[in-house]
Amino acid sequence: MMASDGVNGTQGCRFIKEETVYQGEWLSLGVTTYQDPHGQHRTWETVRRTTRCDGYKTDGAAVVAVLKRALHYDQLILVQQYRPAINGFTLEFPAGLCDAGETVEDCAIRELREETGYTGQVISVSPATCMDAGLSNCTTCLVTAQIDGDDIVNVRPKPHPEEGEFLKVLYFPMSELMTRINDYSKKEGVIVDSRVYMYAMALQQSKGKDPVQRSPGRIDKK
Amino acid sequence: MMASDGVNGTQGCRFIKEETVYQGEWLSLGVTTYQDPHGQHRTWETVRRTTRCDGYKTDGAAVVAVLKRALHYDQLILVQQYRPAINGFTLEFPAGLCDAGETVEDCAIRELREETGYTGQVISVSPATCMDAGLSNCTTCLVTAQIDGDDIVNVRPKPHPEEGEFLKVLYFPMSELMTRINDYSKKEGVIVDSRVYMYAMALQQSKGKDPVQRSPGRIDKK
Repeated sequence: MMASDGVNGTQGCRFIKEETVYQGEWLSLGVTTYQDPHGQHRTWETVRRTTRCDGYKTDGAAVVAVLKRALHYDQLILVQQYRPAINGFTLEFPAGLCDAGETVEDCAIRELREETGYTGQVISVSPATCMDAGLSNCTTCLVTAQIDGDDIVNVRPKPHPEEGEFLKVLYFPMSELMTRINDYSKKEGVIVDSRVYMYAMALQQSKGKDPVQRSPGRIDKK
Repeated sequence: MMASDGVNGTQGCRFIKEETVYQGEWLSLGVTTYQDPHGQHRTWETVRRTTRCDGYKTDGAAVVAVLKRALHYDQLILVQQYRPAINGFTLEFPAGLCDAGETVEDCAIRELREETGYTGQVISVSPATCMDAGLSNCTTCLVTAQIDGDDIVNVRPKPHPEEGEFLKVLYFPMSELMTRINDYSKKEGVIVDSRVYMYAMALQQSKGKDPVQRSPGRIDKK
């Protein structure tokens, strides 16, 4: 099933030590020293959140929430956010950081309610998955949830965002997710989260369609 | 199609200024000041890579590469890497940063060849998508590619990793991707990249199957 390991593989790689070089309020930046498969010591710049709860493998949860209503098409619920790091707006799954003592499921359902107003039911939960492992140790659990849109609690959903959180709730029909996300992001100039895009892309691919046709050779410049 | 915007939405959010508080070799940490929809000034800690090519919207590319061979099941090619930030091993798509002047497609095909030895053909390319927008401005383009495993160039693929890059190439049958990725990551203790997991999850969901059944209430602790 797999290629041979060894010096061209990953055996022998191990953590040696880490030195914090900058301590922020929400983030810390460290220089990690590790050993490569040749026994050589190397360093890597590493970002960590200061907010991960003690003993938790995950920083937070993201919710793939599908709104189901009688006589309506199923819709995926996404949120548009202003993201200072991007200097712009993004299209993301409802998501957030786990509070201490909170289960991943509780975190997912709480974030869904806070950000969108909807009450959902958890269908599945992934293990902690990494967000950008070349850069940080940040992880998230991917939670799928269903929203019963005919339930009285979901008829006039009212978001309760946290202090400093500003969001717009968006609905995309599951049957043409890729097309609608592409159209919306192009029209509004929002950047799509890579997990959202991958989800739409895989659903598209499962129908035997190519996700995005683009002429080869084009440079993705501004 | 969408909820109303305004003070509960995102209108009025805008960038004010950014101050670099730590300059590393590969990363920089800034404090971004922005205006919220109430006109209030707020700050955010923001990570950026120092390596993004001038004028590029994306830091790099990740390749969803499917190996196709006569009389074999289609297989997804993934790489296992030691990641100092994680203090452990990850399962990721072949991926890397764009070189100056390089197209996203060229970057994807080059990284695929370097990391796995395979020569692939680009099928589709996404716009720049964000990796972890609450934390960084990092983006990637998601490239789908096919590998003709019967082509002579792909018969005995030999990876050519860059200096300091140590990888193991892994093959997962597309027909049971989710199950095999779950089994492998559990057995080997590797953390799955969130985009890889989302891809497998969506393909599973498209078959009408729940991705991971788990008893609710379980806390995802170590």
